[in-house]
Amino acid sequence: MTRIAILGATGYTSLELIKVLLRHPQAEIVAITSRQEGNPHVAMVHPSLTNRLDLALENLAPAEVAARAECVFSCLPHATSAAIVPHLLDGGCRVVDFSADYRLDDVETFERWYGEKHPDPSRLGKVVYGLPELFRDRIPAATLVANPGCYPTSAILPLAPLLKAKLIDPHDIILDSKSGVSGAGRTAKLITHYPECNESLSAYNVGRHRHTPEIEQILGRACGETVDVIFTPHLVPMDRGILTTAYLRPLHDITEEKVLETLREFYDQEPFVRVVDHLPATKDSTDTNFCDITARVVRGRILTISCLDNLIKGASGAAVQNFNLMYGFPETTAL
Amino acid sequence: MTRIAILGATGYTSLELIKVLLRHPQAEIVAITSRQEGNPHVAMVHPSLTNRLDLALENLAPAEVAARAECVFSCLPHATSAAIVPHLLDGGCRVVDFSADYRLDDVETFERWYGEKHPDPSRLGKVVYGLPELFRDRIPAATLVANPGCYPTSAILPLAPLLKAKLIDPHDIILDSKSGVSGAGRTAKLITHYPECNESLSAYNVGRHRHTPEIEQILGRACGETVDVIFTPHLVPMDRGILTTAYLRPLHDITEEKVLETLREFYDQEPFVRVVDHLPATKDSTDTNFCDITARVVRGRILTISCLDNLIKGASGAAVQNFNLMYGFPETTAL
Amino acid sequence: MTRIAILGATGYTSLELIKVLLRHPQAEIVAITSRQEGNPHVAMVHPSLTNRLDLALENLAPAEVAARAECVFSCLPHATSAAIVPHLLDGGCRVVDFSADYRLDDVETFERWYGEKHPDPSRLGKVVYGLPELFRDRIPAATLVANPGCYPTSAILPLAPLLKAKLIDPHDIILDSKSGVSGAGRTAKLITHYPECNESLSAYNVGRHRHTPEIEQILGRACGETVDVIFTPHLVPMDRGILTTAYLRPLHDITEEKVLETLREFYDQEPFVRVVDHLPATKDSTDTNFCDITARVVRGRILTISCLDNLIKGASGAAVQNFNLMYGFPETTAL
Amino acid sequence: MTRIAILGATGYTSLELIKVLLRHPQAEIVAITSRQEGNPHVAMVHPSLTNRLDLALENLAPAEVAARAECVFSCLPHATSAAIVPHLLDGGCRVVDFSADYRLDDVETFERWYGEKHPDPSRLGKVVYGLPELFRDRIPAATLVANPGCYPTSAILPLAPLLKAKLIDPHDIILDSKSGVSGAGRTAKLITHYPECNESLSAYNVGRHRHTPEIEQILGRACGETVDVIFTPHLVPMDRGILTTAYLRPLHDITEEKVLETLREFYDQEPFVRVVDHLPATKDSTDTNFCDITARVVRGRILTISCLDNLIKGASGAAVQNFNLMYGFPETTAL
Repeated sequence: MTRIAILGATGYTSLELIKVLLRHPQAEIVAITSRQEGNPHVAMVHPSLTNRLDLALENLAPAEVAARAECVFSCLPHATSAAIVPHLLDGGCRVVDFSADYRLDDVETFERWYGEKHPDPSRLGKVVYGLPELFRDRIPAATLVANPGCYPTSAILPLAPLLKAKLIDPHDIILDSKSGVSGAGRTAKLITHYPECNESLSAYNVGRHRHTPEIEQILGRACGETVDVIFTPHLVPMDRGILTTAYLRPLHDITEEKVLETLREFYDQEPFVRVVDHLPATKDSTDTNFCDITARVVRGRILTISCLDNLIKGASGAAVQNFNLMYGFPETTAL
Repeated sequence: MTRIAILGATGYTSLELIKVLLRHPQAEIVAITSRQEGNPHVAMVHPSLTNRLDLALENLAPAEVAARAECVFSCLPHATSAAIVPHLLDGGCRVVDFSADYRLDDVETFERWYGEKHPDPSRLGKVVYGLPELFRDRIPAATLVANPGCYPTSAILPLAPLLKAKLIDPHDIILDSKSGVSGAGRTAKLITHYPECNESLSAYNVGRHRHTPEIEQILGRACGETVDVIFTPHLVPMDRGILTTAYLRPLHDITEEKVLETLREFYDQEPFVRVVDHLPATKDSTDTNFCDITARVVRGRILTISCLDNLIKGASGAAVQNFNLMYGFPETTAL
Repeated sequence: MTRIAILGATGYTSLELIKVLLRHPQAEIVAITSRQEGNPHVAMVHPSLTNRLDLALENLAPAEVAARAECVFSCLPHATSAAIVPHLLDGGCRVVDFSADYRLDDVETFERWYGEKHPDPSRLGKVVYGLPELFRDRIPAATLVANPGCYPTSAILPLAPLLKAKLIDPHDIILDSKSGVSGAGRTAKLITHYPECNESLSAYNVGRHRHTPEIEQILGRACGETVDVIFTPHLVPMDRGILTTAYLRPLHDITEEKVLETLREFYDQEPFVRVVDHLPATKDSTDTNFCDITARVVRGRILTISCLDNLIKGASGAAVQNFNLMYGFPETTAL
Repeated sequence: MTRIAILGATGYTSLELIKVLLRHPQAEIVAITSRQEGNPHVAMVHPSLTNRLDLALENLAPAEVAARAECVFSCLPHATSAAIVPHLLDGGCRVVDFSADYRLDDVETFERWYGEKHPDPSRLGKVVYGLPELFRDRIPAATLVANPGCYPTSAILPLAPLLKAKLIDPHDIILDSKSGVSGAGRTAKLITHYPECNESLSAYNVGRHRHTPEIEQILGRACGETVDVIFTPHLVPMDRGILTTAYLRPLHDITEEKVLETLREFYDQEPFVRVVDHLPATKDSTDTNFCDITARVVRGRILTISCLDNLIKGASGAAVQNFNLMYGFPETTAL
């Protein structure tokens, strides 16, 4: 049994992570933390966990976490996580970090997009990006894994094979993404107040969403060229799910069949990517670790449509997939 | 044109009130207030009003309001409203108060259920309860009208005729109510955070919702006896609408036809109560000032089912109905 | 491995059943049936099962099913299921029947409420009702189990302990139930067309829902007396979940604590009933096999509030719980 | 009073049309038709109209309609409407046609995209397209107006001014549209069955939605050049609202301010187009005849975002706007 701690355990990704880990035969959750006072029982914060996990949320110092746990999932906010992670690594823990802190290679890019000073800049550029479909080889030996963002996963998985195969122009990429509301987190705000966002649809952070440089960096790494994307996120009145519609310019004449075949070959052995002929709905992958992808050619452009559950393949499922690879368990365990 | 001010104009009832009044040929909104700093334009707070109302939200003293407006709709919270209303009345305004402050006759009842000292206790018991279907005669001459609560309207309209006709036991009344989320107001809270209440249903404030004494008082007044109710509100994942299922004990053998006939006769001339044979859905009355009512007799009990839009017939539509009566306009104007 | 067939595999309960069984280490799905022509692959009908189950839907005769499978889950409609089940039993299969066909003891009651002739009347009254919390002892030896209805489970679990303990009047029971839309099945109808039922709430089948006699029979068996209920179902705009608010008359003065204690003692050893102090939301038990129950005493009445996922504890989860007991697997396997 | 008939009055656009017309001081609905047997009262089909409109749905021949009504709103399906309309015109009626039958200039384009023979081909190319913002001059004299499609209105209004001003490339236009479910009509189908589309998002008819040639034709007419669009519609779990995100290639360097200014000048006098600085949500225009538009420049591309209520500005509100222009009433009457 691997002893696990979860930092920042009051949010939606933590809740899903706990649910996945409770099904895992090799994982034992030994600590969950939050800054809430009074060490509330986890069932006070997540009533769905009543009788399923008997732990209190504690406000633990990194050393206390490291004394109890071998593997730490950090669900702390950006700029907070990287202030803690070095202490956990020093304490001998392996860490899967859900924040954006270790995803970007470059400290200036981080500070420009996130507007905060990076607490651990020297590690940037050396941390494996935990998308097994692209970087599986590097994960087993990693002590620290940067768990991908939800939008980036939905954008990178369909595009990376096409960029690698030099089928599309890396400088003319439009990503129109639509996400359920859980992606906005669990903090009550007016924009996610039920009567505000229910029965409504809107774009947000147009041209300045922080997942933009993450998508560009990873796609650039995949194809060995710089990549530019226009990324537009939209808020959809549903709990979960991301659908990304990508509009791509082919470099040569190409058929729909060839695009689908390229995707299919690339993901042939992947347990969690389903290249499908039909147009996928987000509900097909809700509560699963799958990413569903299809493609169409429309009037000379390639369109890809990709769906995933932002809390599972877009966060906690991917984290457990990484955990499985780090510890040598079958990659699909508990997923 | 009647000059109108709306106090506390940032919430959902105010927004609906403004929309109704914009259709009213005899009403001119001359002031809207809030404590927000910087006098934001109403369209900053309610984007749907862009190009429809050109006013800023101002933080006005009661005297300033009274200097501008003849009629004031107060959408202030309880215990706040009654601290302001006396000054408005002194300033010559007529007032429709949306808060609970003037609905109860008895200061002790108010202070027990609301947990606050009443700022204007001497007026309690003298203010007309603005439910025209029961108290129309008293409204035209009123300077102050207590606008009914949303749940009370949904409960009083089906029950008052049956109690008046001595058809049901006033001490064995069960009210199982279900409300959309806008009833909880516009302040962001965890319980009304989208991913918390979406795709979920729960009861709340069981046995201690503040509308209980209001329902009992008005029904008691209707039938001349004390009335006891068990009132259980539930939160439903939808924006608007209340459905109240009432379980009543008949005092004598009675048929469904007789119950429906009693309701139909009582509301025969009412423009906004529809006694129907079918089982109404809340959507039938969404965005309208109607209350739909039907009845069934099941295994010796009478059931009534009533639906209304909590923001219209349950709040702002009722307020304009009262306004029309106060100023001698046709009662259905703008509704 | 137990070889399993699922009859009528196109609906929502079948889909959830398949998902649960795919997690079950001792179950192998060997046949799924429907009357759809052309033997479509299951992923054509349930896209979420793409790459998860590689079977076609076949139109199989009972003998063909019995030749392949040891255990059959019948998700066929009432009056259809009991025409097939005898052949499966004759063929040596054990059967969990999701329909209402074997739940009632009495053929006249069945035919009055369901309006159809019963195809297998001689078995009525001899089939175990598959609610392990009440009838666990009889399940391991059963060849045929009648899987409970979703509303009945939500009503029986909170009430049975109180009736057994003679705490409440069996003739004054009001059940106000609210269900998500998946309970209405997967056949497209106007009433469940998205723009009809979304953002709307309504009661349906008031006084004549077919689960009424099932609730009364099982509660009557639990307490050894006849039981009468008024049962009112409501349709709520959400996918899943049932919440039942029960209004009960205590036979003696009683405290909330005593009611909760009675429930807690009764379910102390049960893996899937959570007696909680807080007011449960349906979302707490979504996607789980739990039934959450609490109680309140309000103005001399006992209220119980119970929540469950209509497709899991109200159907497919309960069925796998029964399957586990029938085959000697740990009761919580895959749940 | 203008006597009005509505053909095909069972759907959602008809319901909204009736609600708008009930507020219109110069309109009297004298006939509503459907092929439903038995002449049901409108309140049987649209319960929300109980006590608001006292008419039965009749199966009337065109001559009967023409005998009663001056103006006819045809909400019949495509290829059905154009088989009726000529008879109405011959009978002296003026017609607003909601179908696609008279929107396209070219019979071959119609027959290729709609897959049906056009019943009245000789009129194609001579019917005014009822988008007052572009073709107001031609509407007052029209006897037949082709009411625009919902997606086309959401796409044409933001793009026409930019194309006319030669700011964008007419051959590189991507339209990513998202619509609520009412756009799919009122016929119950699996794809719009509540548990299928609730909590889910999907693209549909990618590259082959029938509104594509309509958008291209009208935009082409606006700018005097051929226009090519890639149009991708998505189904969003909400009742109403369309949001279209357009990705456009500027022909010259341009600032966001200049794009907004171009839009603002173009729509300066328009009562129903609101050019806004903020990112509009569909809810801002729900239940109104407004179209909200904004623009952004992102990495060298122009993005426009436009929102409207598909049943009002996208259908019935636009129809009444046309009606007002045809009969010389103030254009905003009842809207």
